[in-house]
Amino acid sequence: MSNTLEVIPLGGIGEFGMNMMVVRYGDDMIAIDCGLMFPEDGLPGVDFVIPDLTFIADNKHLLRAIVLTHGHEDHIGALPFVLKTANVPVYGTRFTLGLVEGRLHEHDLAQKVQLNIIKPRESFSIGPFSIEPVRVSHSLVDCVALAVSTPVGTIVHTGDFKVDETPVCGSAIDLTRLREIGDKGVLALFTDSTNAESPGRTGSEKSVIPAFEDVFEQADGKIVVTCFSSSIHRLQIIFDMAYEFHKKVAVLGRSIQRNVELGDSLRFLDIPDGLMINPNDIKKYEGEELVVIASGCQGEPASAMGRIAVDAHKQCAIDKGDTVVLSGRIIPGNERSISRMMGNIFKKGGTVVDSSVARVHVSGHPKQDDLRIVTEALRPKFYIPIHGEPRQLFRHKDFVVSAGLVTERNVLMCESGDVIALDSDSIRVHAKVLVGRTFIDSTGMEEVAEMVVRDRRNLSYDGFVMPIVAFNPTSGAMETDPELVTVGFMDDSDKQMLTEMKDVLESTIKAAGHDERTDGSIMKDRIRISLKRHIQKATGRRPVIIPVIMEI
Amino acid sequence: MSNTLEVIPLGGIGEFGMNMMVVRYGDDMIAIDCGLMFPEDGLPGVDFVIPDLTFIADNKHLLRAIVLTHGHEDHIGALPFVLKTANVPVYGTRFTLGLVEGRLHEHDLAQKVQLNIIKPRESFSIGPFSIEPVRVSHSLVDCVALAVSTPVGTIVHTGDFKVDETPVCGSAIDLTRLREIGDKGVLALFTDSTNAESPGRTGSEKSVIPAFEDVFEQADGKIVVTCFSSSIHRLQIIFDMAYEFHKKVAVLGRSIQRNVELGDSLRFLDIPDGLMINPNDIKKYEGEELVVIASGCQGEPASAMGRIAVDAHKQCAIDKGDTVVLSGRIIPGNERSISRMMGNIFKKGGTVVDSSVARVHVSGHPKQDDLRIVTEALRPKFYIPIHGEPRQLFRHKDFVVSAGLVTERNVLMCESGDVIALDSDSIRVHAKVLVGRTFIDSTGMEEVAEMVVRDRRNLSYDGFVMPIVAFNPTSGAMETDPELVTVGFMDDSDKQMLTEMKDVLESTIKAAGHDERTDGSIMKDRIRISLKRHIQKATGRRPVIIPVIMEI
Repeated sequence: MSNTLEVIPLGGIGEFGMNMMVVRYGDDMIAIDCGLMFPEDGLPGVDFVIPDLTFIADNKHLLRAIVLTHGHEDHIGALPFVLKTANVPVYGTRFTLGLVEGRLHEHDLAQKVQLNIIKPRESFSIGPFSIEPVRVSHSLVDCVALAVSTPVGTIVHTGDFKVDETPVCGSAIDLTRLREIGDKGVLALFTDSTNAESPGRTGSEKSVIPAFEDVFEQADGKIVVTCFSSSIHRLQIIFDMAYEFHKKVAVLGRSIQRNVELGDSLRFLDIPDGLMINPNDIKKYEGEELVVIASGCQGEPASAMGRIAVDAHKQCAIDKGDTVVLSGRIIPGNERSISRMMGNIFKKGGTVVDSSVARVHVSGHPKQDDLRIVTEALRPKFYIPIHGEPRQLFRHKDFVVSAGLVTERNVLMCESGDVIALDSDSIRVHAKVLVGRTFIDSTGMEEVAEMVVRDRRNLSYDGFVMPIVAFNPTSGAMETDPELVTVGFMDDSDKQMLTEMKDVLESTIKAAGHDERTDGSIMKDRIRISLKRHIQKATGRRPVIIPVIMEI
Repeated sequence: MSNTLEVIPLGGIGEFGMNMMVVRYGDDMIAIDCGLMFPEDGLPGVDFVIPDLTFIADNKHLLRAIVLTHGHEDHIGALPFVLKTANVPVYGTRFTLGLVEGRLHEHDLAQKVQLNIIKPRESFSIGPFSIEPVRVSHSLVDCVALAVSTPVGTIVHTGDFKVDETPVCGSAIDLTRLREIGDKGVLALFTDSTNAESPGRTGSEKSVIPAFEDVFEQADGKIVVTCFSSSIHRLQIIFDMAYEFHKKVAVLGRSIQRNVELGDSLRFLDIPDGLMINPNDIKKYEGEELVVIASGCQGEPASAMGRIAVDAHKQCAIDKGDTVVLSGRIIPGNERSISRMMGNIFKKGGTVVDSSVARVHVSGHPKQDDLRIVTEALRPKFYIPIHGEPRQLFRHKDFVVSAGLVTERNVLMCESGDVIALDSDSIRVHAKVLVGRTFIDSTGMEEVAEMVVRDRRNLSYDGFVMPIVAFNPTSGAMETDPELVTVGFMDDSDKQMLTEMKDVLESTIKAAGHDERTDGSIMKDRIRISLKRHIQKATGRRPVIIPVIMEI
């Protein structure tokens, strides 16, 4: 065991989001990334999901640091929760740490956590690990892959990336350095499966420029662009084009404003003097003088774009002839809210330009030929597809094997929680640790118990029926007529069903002997079973039945 | 008014599904189609949605018939409910009525409704209307457009269609007849917006054959195909190819089995003798001898395909080397369940072929050039985009106007519920009728009140808190300690929150005077308000609060 490196993904394999991977050698452990996940439907009241932190809590004496590849929520969003469990130094590039600081402030952790800036091609050591960040390109800026030298060999974690030789902001992916690292030998490559189903290249951030040029050339009225708040390259393109076309730019939405400030202060964004205007001044300009950047490309009703679309935004409205550009991908599940927003814009006389009619968005993740380029640079012995649901992971494997980049037996298919044991000439899963999902309600930044979420889901299906009975605990006599409260189960006007349920309730109570009546748990069971049976037979529904016994 | 034709869409405009359109002249009214809609998220326990039937109920003395364009659920699914409101004769083609009979049986209506078979090019009269069905192609078979001659002119409702000159089953779209109808003059065209955002042609049902040939040529093991149960052309392609490759076919899933029987009995499907095997015999054959057709292309867990994917199907399992073809579009909202199903198949060693890697599905709805062809054949004076959300309707308009097919002022943009008034040279919306959605729970085939659904949704968000207090109604004295029941709100182990809430409850009761205590509604309000305030302050959450007062 002492010559074995362990790699333990705690999330992000078999699912999108919650990217977090622990690397352990002997008594030293680092974590790469620390992300959250946005919940699927059927988790009512849950705002986001983070990895189960049991493993981190149990091993916090071994955890030396958290190293970040980039600043997207699915890579940094769980940091505050992990740091509350194990307050270790955090390493990341300047822009990444800028985003991290924002998160830490929200949790009152800003003063309590040690942040260390890292730079591409500048190695640093943590315990037995020597870590070199390597510049990669992505939809965000200042992203790196991590080459981790360990006593058994070098492993590379690409983070999220694409091969973009012409990014808008910052420098291009450092293929030269990746090749040098490859020359020295790479034991294992852990890399992004998001787009591994798609052939070809993903395309540069610059590939959306022609579509934006068309919009700017043809627009008579105001141009409103909505994009992800972290799309720094996209923002720069809009600034450049607004400048070229002599327009002013207003930014609406808190997160996008913060990111513009951060990008500007760290010089990732280059904003010409006099370009930006205060959102309060939007209405002072004619439409053709204006570009508005608004958050809310998923049609979120409370976002700037969501409110603009229904004429509920103080500072900005859609006028006839305006053009709205939806410059982001559709996250599955958001189709209807986006379509609804588009419909509202059309109804106000606006035109909508989205990916279905022009190339106004490009992905930040590698397609098959991007994966090929990086794999050929690194020439790893072992290959581990990460970041994806099983369909992406398996097709990722199929691609790299059929492309001859790696042999089938050197590809390891694994799951979150697998303890991957690596030495200089073998890879295998030799153990499992507990992984899972922890639900967070963002109102209180608090954990929501799985049981609570399950209860909510059950309640949402057919509502509930609550029979309330007051007994005298000694005599077993009913002190008053039983009550029946139902919510979400039936129409209040359905008196017949109510009468039937009361009859069932009364006959159940009458049929019970004195001893049973004075035992609350027995009576509850009796009542639950008889009501459930009657309701299912009469309606086919299965409301949650919650008997309450009051002892008077 | 007597020379005015009224057309009233009761659903299907501004939304997908619930297609139903009333045509009225004087005291005679027909309905074209009568469809349901599958609910969006946030309607827990609702299985489908039908149009509000108030207008039909109020005007049933005028309704002479329902005429159907084709048998998809979004065109026939509300029929039983409408027929219970107004039992009028139903007109449809043989295959359409075959599907309708199935629905009527489920509602014990089969013996009570008059069904009339209609045929392309054979006109029939209902009151002042002479109606000619015209063959159109679609993903289903035996579909027609309806040319309705009225005293003010001829209107054409295309139903769902595409221009498919080479369908697999049945005859091609009858462009010749559409042109003849166009020659005689068309006052207004009502047509399908589903794919109106997409340039080009939709493609024939035959366009998926090459991809299926690849699958059949390369498959070593069993081939499992999942598609919509009404994809009759697709089923024929699979039967033909199975026959050609000397394989046997088993069909799993009740709805798909029923449609195969219907298609076979009406000779829309041509199934070679000896091709089909009993699903119970699947395991008697070697993988390479077998094609299995399974329902469940949306990843529904209870469907045949859903169960096969998790090894929970009695008759069929995925073995290493099997190929699964997902031959249907992804209905938005189902991405995750489909991806999960794909992942399960990959994990069992199967290969998945879906639209992301091969052309195994083609739409049945018109793209822009299909719309162009039909519009050029009919040359309508007025043009009304139907069947779509606003984004599709507006882009449909943009296309036909920019393509010069109709002038902008002759395109009418309308909404469900608009009463469109047509005479020989004008079109306008001159009134509104009540439209809306009626929720149906398929367990009992019963209506679910909107209030009940809203309650369920509220319950699902933060659960509920129910304080129960027993008072003596005359003395106003509490007869026992108050109870607090919470479900879906907080973790049971959170004793502190429970204690806090009980304290709030008790102090609220203590602060109340005798008169207040003996008035249940005042006490309920007091308790609700004070608990709500405390809970919001302490947790930021908003559970449903339901105070109960027991009078002892």
